[in-house]
Amino acid sequence: VSGLPQVGIDDLRAAARRIAPYVHRTPLLRSRTLERELGCEVYCKCENLQKVGAFKARGAVNAVLLLDEAAAAAGVVTHSSGNHAAALAYAAQIRGARCTVVMPEDAPAIKRAAVRGYGAEIVPCRRAERERACNELIEKRGLTLVHPFEDRNVVAGAGTAALELLEDVPELDLLIAPIGGGGLLAGSAIAVRALAPTCGIVGAEPEAVDDASRSFQTGVRQPTVHGAQTVADGLMTGIGALNFAILRQHEAEIVTVGEAAILEAAHFFLFRTKLVVEPSSATVLAALRRLGPRLRGLRIGAILSGGNTDFSWLAR
Amino acid sequence: VSGLPQVGIDDLRAAARRIAPYVHRTPLLRSRTLERELGCEVYCKCENLQKVGAFKARGAVNAVLLLDEAAAAAGVVTHSSGNHAAALAYAAQIRGARCTVVMPEDAPAIKRAAVRGYGAEIVPCRRAERERACNELIEKRGLTLVHPFEDRNVVAGAGTAALELLEDVPELDLLIAPIGGGGLLAGSAIAVRALAPTCGIVGAEPEAVDDASRSFQTGVRQPTVHGAQTVADGLMTGIGALNFAILRQHEAEIVTVGEAAILEAAHFFLFRTKLVVEPSSATVLAALRRLGPRLRGLRIGAILSGGNTDFSWLAR
Repeated sequence: VSGLPQVGIDDLRAAARRIAPYVHRTPLLRSRTLERELGCEVYCKCENLQKVGAFKARGAVNAVLLLDEAAAAAGVVTHSSGNHAAALAYAAQIRGARCTVVMPEDAPAIKRAAVRGYGAEIVPCRRAERERACNELIEKRGLTLVHPFEDRNVVAGAGTAALELLEDVPELDLLIAPIGGGGLLAGSAIAVRALAPTCGIVGAEPEAVDDASRSFQTGVRQPTVHGAQTVADGLMTGIGALNFAILRQHEAEIVTVGEAAILEAAHFFLFRTKLVVEPSSATVLAALRRLGPRLRGLRIGAILSGGNTDFSWLAR
Repeated sequence: VSGLPQVGIDDLRAAARRIAPYVHRTPLLRSRTLERELGCEVYCKCENLQKVGAFKARGAVNAVLLLDEAAAAAGVVTHSSGNHAAALAYAAQIRGARCTVVMPEDAPAIKRAAVRGYGAEIVPCRRAERERACNELIEKRGLTLVHPFEDRNVVAGAGTAALELLEDVPELDLLIAPIGGGGLLAGSAIAVRALAPTCGIVGAEPEAVDDASRSFQTGVRQPTVHGAQTVADGLMTGIGALNFAILRQHEAEIVTVGEAAILEAAHFFLFRTKLVVEPSSATVLAALRRLGPRLRGLRIGAILSGGNTDFSWLAR
């Protein structure tokens, strides 16, 4: 842990001021049906209504605004094909910087269109060669990598969602967010420990990719589960070293959830709240349901991290 | 016209006070993407986030609260299988009144579940015999019919959405709402003429069921189009006599929209705003797009009337 650069509440506060002109202060949603079912207050932070449809805009904008002039002039690159790719393209457009996204040839047209819509260049490659292709661009073109989660400026930006939630609802008993690479949960944990020291921190993780859960159980970061099948496509990444360190330090807890529970939760949001919440984000409701009676009477903050989906899960 | 009972702004104001404890003051949505495309300000009134997922809660609650004791004790009935059925069941539950809904045997399970969820009784019948079955119940059981739109208390309740919109955004140049039976548009027109006399009033109607459009063109109420195919399943009803009279008096205008345009608009809401807007409601965006350059620089209010859908149109 000692060797890793840490992130503190002041970094989150500075990030919040920095990104404010470019991101939404997203609304909070409460559902009477949900609160009655769970027997507690649940404040859902609607990052699905954020710029580019996900909290990722916060971290990417913060990281790109913090680049020095030379790095911004050379441009940024990433190899995500999900929400971070669109977020980085958006952030680069704000800064007037070039953005390159290395993307598998078979990435969905809708994702390619989102990235191109923000003026980024797409470099297609075979799925297995994404990192190599990305590294080549960094070397040849002098691009700066903005990692989707293993980057302290990205983590600080991601934490601003929880910062807003705690400003709006100060006395939270528990904060829950999905966990993939862990940037959102780590950033949230920093905000929680600074502003609501006794508040619990829970990460919702699909059983199919339970590396974070096993990492916490063993105390050693476990390898990513490769080739896993989950409807929560945004959470297939393994937890990063920086985020694992932050989350252990701040005593987070991981709750795993099955595919059926994730689907049921995504359906709940769509049909009851009329909000598009992507399955990766619906994991938080599945996890709350799993925690069950432990939640009675509590005041809970839940981060609905994104709303980008092709609805292919709707028929199941 | 003279023989029809009229509805005025005082009826809307009284309805607003009456129903306030039981319905949401729904939020307004603005989309920068949409406003840039249309070159105007568009304030979308999110009745898809209303109780029971549609503006219908407003009219049904108003009508049921206005029943005298004897009528409330005997119970209410309707033969809609759509949003009005769930709304009436909800309203009756508030009043502690019995509610019966005559529904075709082949009505979707999701609609039956919604009505039953509010404690109403469903009387199944063959599709063609709905009205006859309903009349039988009125005679035999002394039930009171709460018509989905041809009822001045329902119209007054429906108009409260526009009333709120005009309170929040006073200087509207144009208000647009979908038109089926015409209750929502007629109620809106009453609010507009009282509070923003020069504001235009536009009804969005599917080309496939263009009876309102033809009624306005000919000056004579035209018969419903039977057996029409439209994705806007909430707008298959023909315009009612009461609402036609109100809308002519207040100089409304009808814009028809094709199926492809409705689908495109419904997709826009789902993928860009992350809001579930049913195709019937998406007609307002399709109509705004059709009005095109006429809208430049205007301030527009658009009522997103509901968010209840099974997404069967998503694959098209």
